[in-house]
Amino acid sequence: MSNGIKRLQTPVSILSYASVVGKKEGEGPMNSYFDKIFDDSYLGEDTWEKAESKLQQTAVLTALEKADLLPENIDLIFAGDLINQCTSSTFGLRPLEIPFLGIYGACSTMAEGLITGSIAMSAGVGEKIVATTSSHFSTAERQFRFPLSYGGQRTPTSQWTCTASGAIVLTKDVQFPQVTGFCIGKITDLGVTDANNMGAAMAPAAADTLVRWFNETGNKPEQYDAIVTGDLGIIGSELFCDLVMKQGYDVTSVHKDCGVMIFDPETQDTHAGGSGCGCSASILCGYFLPKLRTGELCRILFLATGALMSPTLTQQGESIPSISHLVELIGTVNKT
Amino acid sequence: MSNGIKRLQTPVSILSYASVVGKKEGEGPMNSYFDKIFDDSYLGEDTWEKAESKLQQTAVLTALEKADLLPENIDLIFAGDLINQCTSSTFGLRPLEIPFLGIYGACSTMAEGLITGSIAMSAGVGEKIVATTSSHFSTAERQFRFPLSYGGQRTPTSQWTCTASGAIVLTKDVQFPQVTGFCIGKITDLGVTDANNMGAAMAPAAADTLVRWFNETGNKPEQYDAIVTGDLGIIGSELFCDLVMKQGYDVTSVHKDCGVMIFDPETQDTHAGGSGCGCSASILCGYFLPKLRTGELCRILFLATGALMSPTLTQQGESIPSISHLVELIGTVNKT
Repeated sequence: MSNGIKRLQTPVSILSYASVVGKKEGEGPMNSYFDKIFDDSYLGEDTWEKAESKLQQTAVLTALEKADLLPENIDLIFAGDLINQCTSSTFGLRPLEIPFLGIYGACSTMAEGLITGSIAMSAGVGEKIVATTSSHFSTAERQFRFPLSYGGQRTPTSQWTCTASGAIVLTKDVQFPQVTGFCIGKITDLGVTDANNMGAAMAPAAADTLVRWFNETGNKPEQYDAIVTGDLGIIGSELFCDLVMKQGYDVTSVHKDCGVMIFDPETQDTHAGGSGCGCSASILCGYFLPKLRTGELCRILFLATGALMSPTLTQQGESIPSISHLVELIGTVNKT
Repeated sequence: MSNGIKRLQTPVSILSYASVVGKKEGEGPMNSYFDKIFDDSYLGEDTWEKAESKLQQTAVLTALEKADLLPENIDLIFAGDLINQCTSSTFGLRPLEIPFLGIYGACSTMAEGLITGSIAMSAGVGEKIVATTSSHFSTAERQFRFPLSYGGQRTPTSQWTCTASGAIVLTKDVQFPQVTGFCIGKITDLGVTDANNMGAAMAPAAADTLVRWFNETGNKPEQYDAIVTGDLGIIGSELFCDLVMKQGYDVTSVHKDCGVMIFDPETQDTHAGGSGCGCSASILCGYFLPKLRTGELCRILFLATGALMSPTLTQQGESIPSISHLVELIGTVNKT
């Protein structure tokens, strides 16, 4: 590995994936791509935290079901989420009794899970490995911003934390799509302190990781059908393209952002777009991985972005460090 | 890997390690084993959270210094801690600009970092990989229990969160000690709900992992010079030995617990013992790894234990799930 970048000599295969979302996400433009849409924000549980746990558990069980697998067939699971102590993952996955490694990368978690899962697969640590993450509007908003019942006015730069989850099953057998390489993020901080402008905080991290990938691999934007960022939103996406352009790479024609894709800001009042670990996880698992499997897409980069924001440290005057991990994925028909 | 257990065909070498602690830990029985003792609980910073970040950064920089390395020589760092959003790690390691993968395993983090680091090394993902974690009495107590100025009475079963950090540098070159295998924990929950009795919550997880290791590998307790648990404390240790005994393995003569070792309960008023990610990390890096290097110890098991406790979920009536990851380590002279 050089500068956080690894190109896998033997790519890691993706066997199965699932995306589950809440009502609002299910009403958005991506409506037809999700495996399950829950109309009840509590998912039948008595608290939002327990609802998010159930959401993540449902994503994992759906991904397993789609591959005819049971929890006992899984060697290892990498999981994490936004909630303090990653409880959506630990409580949600507790009944499955799968060897568990908790990860924390805020909204970059889906990419971090794909990377750690691919590393473990490359090391021969298992034959079936799962990576998953989730987020929930109500658990995240009250933890990071205001109590929901306070009814605070949302700023134009604010993003809407998605109620969503994605899960991916990696396998030792050869399948498509495949993970062919990755770039591990460095903690980046350009001094943004506004918890209502996550896109601006995260854009420099995504730009740093992507430019590092291009510089080290010699690859160019036009070699990819899509360069997908996690949840930069409308404002962060513009900043991201500008930052990358300043380093000599024009990604505007191939750039997609899951936070922009998941909602219609005109009709859904979501301001700068969606956010949350589940945003990029559900769009990757619901939209991009299926298109890689059918061959409609040949080669993409997936850069989930995480704002490592802490209400405690923000109150202590600290800025918001961010991180972005990149995963290179190829589809059934490979364009080299 | 079978049932979470992997024995490494090529062991992973440990190049360097460091332990740094606070004043109280530095006054305990392990006093002479630590690399650095900070007398100021703020470490010169203006908040405890920033102090913990500095503590972890100091552990990493000390481990690098002992190996004549600079941050730019490190390919990847695995880090996590107890504080919400793992800020001790993200803010502490931000200036080092090392590719960063955040992990969350509560007090099991040192073992999780050693495992994920060893997996990454086995996958050829780097030549020098760091694993680190930390905890701080004042950041943890106020986050998980009461504001310190409240002056709450501590129960007899309560443990004292250590102000401590440990860091380990793994290397591709052959060195001792070495990681020879590991067992990844499953989330275990026997229904303990008392946030002041972490040892009881974590003991079943440690017992589950250890018994799984013995059953699958065929190894016996007497093959180890020490079986080291993280921070079960006095009460949890007894429960752990009982649970393991019931499964047919007598570990009483070789069992050591870092939470028991770090304080003298008679003179230090620490009740059931030490706890926190930094407790087992600092004792592993300060006491056990050096003794493996000199050959004084030949073969040990290190089982850090994490209570995946969430104040939010506890208030919602949930119990405390726990996890324990096991690492097998051999010293310079290997006893097989």
